[in-house]
Amino acid sequence: MEELTILPHNPGAAVAILGGTGQQGRGLAQRFARAGLRVTVGSRDPARAREAVAGWTGSPSAPPIQVADNAAAVATADVTVLAVPYATIDPLLDQLRTQFKAGSLAIDLTVPVTFAAGKMAMLEVAEGSAAEHIRARLPAEVRLACTFKTIPAHLLGAGFEPLDCDEFVCGDSDEARADAAALVGLLPGLRPVDVGPLSRARSIEHMTALAIAINRRHKIHDARFRVVGL
Amino acid sequence: MEELTILPHNPGAAVAILGGTGQQGRGLAQRFARAGLRVTVGSRDPARAREAVAGWTGSPSAPPIQVADNAAAVATADVTVLAVPYATIDPLLDQLRTQFKAGSLAIDLTVPVTFAAGKMAMLEVAEGSAAEHIRARLPAEVRLACTFKTIPAHLLGAGFEPLDCDEFVCGDSDEARADAAALVGLLPGLRPVDVGPLSRARSIEHMTALAIAINRRHKIHDARFRVVGL
Repeated sequence: MEELTILPHNPGAAVAILGGTGQQGRGLAQRFARAGLRVTVGSRDPARAREAVAGWTGSPSAPPIQVADNAAAVATADVTVLAVPYATIDPLLDQLRTQFKAGSLAIDLTVPVTFAAGKMAMLEVAEGSAAEHIRARLPAEVRLACTFKTIPAHLLGAGFEPLDCDEFVCGDSDEARADAAALVGLLPGLRPVDVGPLSRARSIEHMTALAIAINRRHKIHDARFRVVGL
Repeated sequence: MEELTILPHNPGAAVAILGGTGQQGRGLAQRFARAGLRVTVGSRDPARAREAVAGWTGSPSAPPIQVADNAAAVATADVTVLAVPYATIDPLLDQLRTQFKAGSLAIDLTVPVTFAAGKMAMLEVAEGSAAEHIRARLPAEVRLACTFKTIPAHLLGAGFEPLDCDEFVCGDSDEARADAAALVGLLPGLRPVDVGPLSRARSIEHMTALAIAINRRHKIHDARFRVVGL
């Protein structure tokens, strides 16, 4: 199957955000809708999600955001954003893996960390990274890129201020990375930095761990990164 | 033994740079000497090192840099910088571990990566990170911090331009981190960012891997990082 990028040719592409009522999912849903994408928040509980989404989009000028159950959201999506905790990925993909459109793009933004006994630590992942773990559970005809792993959830969900940092992108093909970079580029103040194949995801996940460590140690909330020299 | 910081009380502290004729070691030796530290380049071959160092310090205004064999350099050092490739750490520490002064500080800046078949990849390290590998091979009375892992060697060795980025510091005590941060602070344009215990070193090593990946993919040389929001 020839791969094609989606976003450069289709500024109104359909994007499903799973886990759309968390800070990260909410922020991406609102920002993508504002950028002109057709956004559907997928939920296990669409009635509750509809209520949450109505709370954000109350103003008449807010762009519309649809709500559907997870399976329906994924089935119609050009891009599916997995904005759910890493610990819930396995049952979610068990349920949804046959729903994805062939040639559609999944975006992994999970970070495999634990906070056991107040200490943050990286989880070991047999496949090497959360992204590779997800790759192993998606059908081959669904493309996968990883991005939005290091941007603080709190900042994404807090409004529409420019984000003022870089966001790393890796993926299993040039086309998957180009689409993920196009998504990143839709968010004001966020620059995509292509770091190559999906096997780089572990390094990106470590950067998120470092940002969390910096937040905790320095009592701040929004540590994030800028690449200098690029 | 009560731990004490070295650098805040002793601006003329004795610093040994092992591997001082590589780009990284050369850059640190020259920059620390210029900042007023008493710098000794340690080498397996002092005659050859003396020739190399004379080449850098030819100008009458250059601050002096001593040369000694590795054991003599370490024996008199308040701070020993391990500016050698990760692959050479084991035999080096086998030879030198009894030479370190009690209470002195070792600085690990190694990065466990390989470039087999043109592909850069992180090496697995049984102890978790290169820093923890080194910790396991140093006497308990020698303190250890890790820093200067992400600043590009090429940039460090290229002159005295401000470095314009952040450098991550982790270590096995508050005092070790404070000393390492003070060393970082001696280099114009470099801001130390304390990320906590030595167990964070693996995340820092992954950042270096990511910087190398960015350099190779984008055909640049000096990718490095700035923390935004701190």
